[in-house]
This record gives sequence, structure tokens and C-alpha cells, in this order.
Amino acid sequence: MSQLKQVAIVGATGAVGAEMIRCLEERNYPVGSLKLLASARSAGKKLKFKGEDVVIEELTKDSFKGVDVALFSAGGGISRDFAPAAVSAGAVVVDNSSAFRMDDSCPLVVPEVNAEDVKKHQGIIANPNCTTAISLMALYPLHKAFGVTRVFASSYQAVSGTGAQAIEELARQSREWAKQDRAWDAAKLDSKPQVYPWQIAFNVLPHVDSFLDTGYTKEEMKMENEGRKIMHHPGFRASVTCVRVPVFRAHSVAISAEFEKPISVEAARAVLEKAPGLDVIDDPANKLYPLPLEIAGKDNCAVGRLRMDCAMDNGLAFWVVGDQLLKGAALNAVQIAECL
Amino acid sequence: MSQLKQVAIVGATGAVGAEMIRCLEERNYPVGSLKLLASARSAGKKLKFKGEDVVIEELTKDSFKGVDVALFSAGGGISRDFAPAAVSAGAVVVDNSSAFRMDDSCPLVVPEVNAEDVKKHQGIIANPNCTTAISLMALYPLHKAFGVTRVFASSYQAVSGTGAQAIEELARQSREWAKQDRAWDAAKLDSKPQVYPWQIAFNVLPHVDSFLDTGYTKEEMKMENEGRKIMHHPGFRASVTCVRVPVFRAHSVAISAEFEKPISVEAARAVLEKAPGLDVIDDPANKLYPLPLEIAGKDNCAVGRLRMDCAMDNGLAFWVVGDQLLKGAALNAVQIAECL
Repeated sequence: MSQLKQVAIVGATGAVGAEMIRCLEERNYPVGSLKLLASARSAGKKLKFKGEDVVIEELTKDSFKGVDVALFSAGGGISRDFAPAAVSAGAVVVDNSSAFRMDDSCPLVVPEVNAEDVKKHQGIIANPNCTTAISLMALYPLHKAFGVTRVFASSYQAVSGTGAQAIEELARQSREWAKQDRAWDAAKLDSKPQVYPWQIAFNVLPHVDSFLDTGYTKEEMKMENEGRKIMHHPGFRASVTCVRVPVFRAHSVAISAEFEKPISVEAARAVLEKAPGLDVIDDPANKLYPLPLEIAGKDNCAVGRLRMDCAMDNGLAFWVVGDQLLKGAALNAVQIAECL
Repeated sequence: MSQLKQVAIVGATGAVGAEMIRCLEERNYPVGSLKLLASARSAGKKLKFKGEDVVIEELTKDSFKGVDVALFSAGGGISRDFAPAAVSAGAVVVDNSSAFRMDDSCPLVVPEVNAEDVKKHQGIIANPNCTTAISLMALYPLHKAFGVTRVFASSYQAVSGTGAQAIEELARQSREWAKQDRAWDAAKLDSKPQVYPWQIAFNVLPHVDSFLDTGYTKEEMKMENEGRKIMHHPGFRASVTCVRVPVFRAHSVAISAEFEKPISVEAARAVLEKAPGLDVIDDPANKLYPLPLEIAGKDNCAVGRLRMDCAMDNGLAFWVVGDQLLKGAALNAVQIAECL
């Protein structure tokens, strides 16, 4: 029988925090006690866990006494400020922010890819970028079989990746458009966006995370940087365009991947059908392919649109979709905690 | 002074037809008389041209007597059935469907790229696929300067590309969601989609046009096939994923392009800034990049997010946006008519 763990969630009131609570419940994680931590603003409010009220406490450096596992999802600044305190108090931190991902002393883990790296932790284990984690669910099994050299990828990222306020922004803008009974070609609203720099409803934004001097966004470099670390593949190259789309909670990624060994659609499908945590939905004749609205709320990611790449030898083009809040965040974090 | 032309529009009641009428007006095309043709269902209705009512007539094989230029935008079947009749009657057809694009006897023209091909026509000139035309507005100037070998491209295509009923479907689904005051994670509606196989509101569909046996859609092959013909570049390769997004009328395309000659962001920008019909919007520090909601209704396409490709030598990544109904359809057709 598993030993019961004292678990803390930092950022319990966020979009990912809510899914972390649900994942702990649904996966029957051996929770002894659950501590929900958030900012002072939320302290005193209650959330349900297994039918019981849990009172939210204010996050302080003294919050982690007796805590075994602390799941952080409150942004990089909070992680940098509070994760060391949690580690000092004896907790193992699973951090959903980008703060420690590229830190050599912190394993970066997708359990289906590199669960064994969890053992090397020195207190903090990092949860990868959502688009990277979802892409690797299909790319890594193909890499093991055929040896990936590089990918060209474009993302279609849901607003949940930006957090609860962004979800509300898409909902509010969509309602504003509908309630004003606007014509379709008057889709640009009068109200100013608050979370994104531009309206997200009826628009797509080629801007996720902040820009680097190279012209890439930080988000666009995560697939190459985090992919190399997670796959233990320092030569892996990734050319990525990250785009926010008016979808609520599942990310989609169009990938063209080049491999060292010859690949075929049939051989790739055979590999992907055996991959853990991944469904193959690839029956174009019946209009079946992964869709973010269908994958939303599901633990498994899905891959489809398998075809030989038109512009590369040994290239395969495919389409991966995963729930950003689950495999892209909360589920992967809880799976890491299960590896402990 | 230009000689006045007798102009017919076939498919006058469609989303593209409406824009054709507007483009003829706004560009002061020398219209002597305008004949608006549509199905029997629309015959007798009126549309405005330069403030005057024009009565819609039913399209028949006898509709083209005295017509100099016939702009077709009513689908491939109508074009195949009626374009030969228009040519027999002495008209030059500019056809927006895919029916004649790959026909060796029909020039396929983006005027900024290959206007001189118009002269070779034998009665029918084809208007290219919208995503291809918009992509070439940025790709062709780069090709002339640096010699493109191949591209990896992912599209974010507006519903206008499917026609007026698809526009109405996105609007109706968005209103249904808003009026039911649904939670954000209940974005899947009860109502069945009618135009697309799956709900388009709050979703993205990796399915544009019909599927081929290779696993590609016809739409995905157009950039390679039509791009080769328009650029006179038979070795051009294109690996494309075409995706429908809940945007009303402008297409976006994320492109990674490989060139024969060394390229730099600065050299590429200098070339693109001189390209006709194209604006460079590329100032990430000020959150400026092309957006479909901003480009909607504009004649010029826009390019931005210029950066050296991470996964190719001599590679450039960029983002092109263009109004699907204008440069992707009606505007390009009227520009072709202007070349006559």
C-alpha cells in the first residue's frame, strides 16, 4: 500500500490548480492531507477535495512544514521565491513554471519519455512547457524508432495556457460580439483587450510568451531546448511558430519531422498505436482526426493526419492535440508526483 | 482612356462575388455594363453597383453574349459547365475555382508575380488558391532574391474561404454559445454543424478541401503545385498543413523557407519592403505583427515575425496574412482583369 503523502498546491485558485486538485482525486493519488495555497486575496475561500471543503491558505515561506510534495503552478516568480523554502522544509517540488526547467540540477520530465530522470532530483522537478510535452507524446516514440533529427512545427494554442483571466477574456469578447448582434465582418470589438495585447476572439496571435532579440518568442524556443533535455538528444533542432487561437483548453501542433532512418506511414502508425498516453485518430475518409474541442478534458493526447512529408526525405507530417491543462500541465505534474 | 468593358460576375451573391463588385467599384475598373449572374433562386434580386440597382439574372449558357470579361466564383462545377460557353461567346474568363488552375492552356496568375503570363491565355485565366496567393506575396520576392528551394507551411484559414454559409455557421455557433451563457469548458454545442463536419467555433479543423489517398488534403498540395506553376519553378517543394480556424475573413500562414543563397533577416526585410502589394509589419518590441483581424478588409497582404530559421541553413521563418476574399480571391481576379 502506498504511504500517504502530505500534498500542497501552490496556485490552487488558477486554471491549472483546479485541474491539479481534480487529477489528484481522479487518479487516487495517496493524499494524506491537502494544503491549498494562494495569494492573500484568496485566503479563507474554500475549494472541494473529495467532497470535503479545504480552506485556502495564504502562501508564505512557512507554508511547507510537514509537506511531502508541493505542486507549484503560480508563475515563474512565485516558483523562484517559494520553491527553495519548500525544499528546505523537506518537500519535493514539482514546478509547472519555466523557472527551473533548464537548470541542470532539476530534472525536466514527461513520465512517458524520461520517468527515470525523476530519481536524479535534488528537491525540484520541472514540468515542461505545454506545447513541448504534448508534441513529445507523439514525437518521442517516433524518435525511439526512427531517430528524429529536426522538426518544423506550428502551434494552435488555447487561451488556458495563459491562465484563468485569458479564458475569461475569450469568453467575454465572444459574448460581447454576440450580444451586440454584429455583422460577421465587424468582428473587431470596441472594448480593449486586457490580457492579450490584441483581441483574441475571431483572431489568431503569432505571439506566445515574450520576444527574444532573435525575433523568436521564448515559447518558440522551448520545443528545441526542453526537447533536447527531455529526450537526452542534444542535436535535436526545432523551428517553431507559436500562435494563440480562440480555443479554450486544448493545444494543437502541426509537425513535420525528419528522421535518420527510413520511415513510412504504416511503420509510424504501428509505433504510435503502442505509445502510452496517446490515441491515434487518423481516419480522414471518415473525417476523423484529432480536434481540440474533442480532446478537451481528456488525459490522453491524440495524433493523426499521418502522411509522408512532401519536402523532406525520411520525413513524416502529423498533427498532435492535447489538453493544455491536463497533459500540458496538471496531469503531467501529478504523474511526476506518482513517480516519486 | 481605357475602353469600357462589358463585365459579368458569375456567383454574384456569394461572399467572393460581393467583394468582386466592390473591387470593380473601388479600383475604377472601366465597367461599361455589369451583368450579375447567379442561380435561378437569386434571379430577380437586386445588388448595388456604383449606387445603381443591378438585377441578378439566372446563369445560363446564353448569358455571355457581348460580355468582354467574365469573373467566375461559383465553384468548380459551375466553372467547368459554363466557362467554355463564356469563351465561345467571346469573353475572357477569370476563374476563381480550382477547375482550370493546373490546365496547361490556362495561365495561373498572381499579377505581382507573373502578370506577363496573362498574355498567353486562350480564353480562361485561373485565379490561384487563396493560401497560395497570399503566401506567394511574400515568398516570391524572397525567391527572386535568394532562390527558394522548399517551404514548410501551416495555415490558419478563415471561414470565408468556404463561402457565405460557413461565415454564417461560425457566427451562428458563436451566438449560440454566448446566448446559452455556457461555461468556457462547455464550449461544445448541442447543435449539429451544417457546413463543416465539426463545430468551428472555439475549435480548429485540420481539414480544408477533400482528402487524397496520400493523407494530404487537396488544399495542402496547392501551394506546391500552384506555386511551381506561378513561380515557373518546377523544383519547388512544399510541405503544408492546412487548418481552418474560427476567424471570419483573413488567412494567416506560418512559413519556414529554405533558400539557395545565404539570407539574413536584414536582407529579407529590405526585399520585402520593396515588394508590391505587401506591407512589412514586424516590430515585436511594440507587439506589432500581422493579425487577421487587422488585415481583414485590406487590399495589401502583410508579412512579419521575420527570423532566421532554427532548423535549416539559409532558412527564414516568417508569418504572412492576407484577406482571403480580397488578395485570396476577388481582388486578385480584378487585378488579372486589369492586365487584359
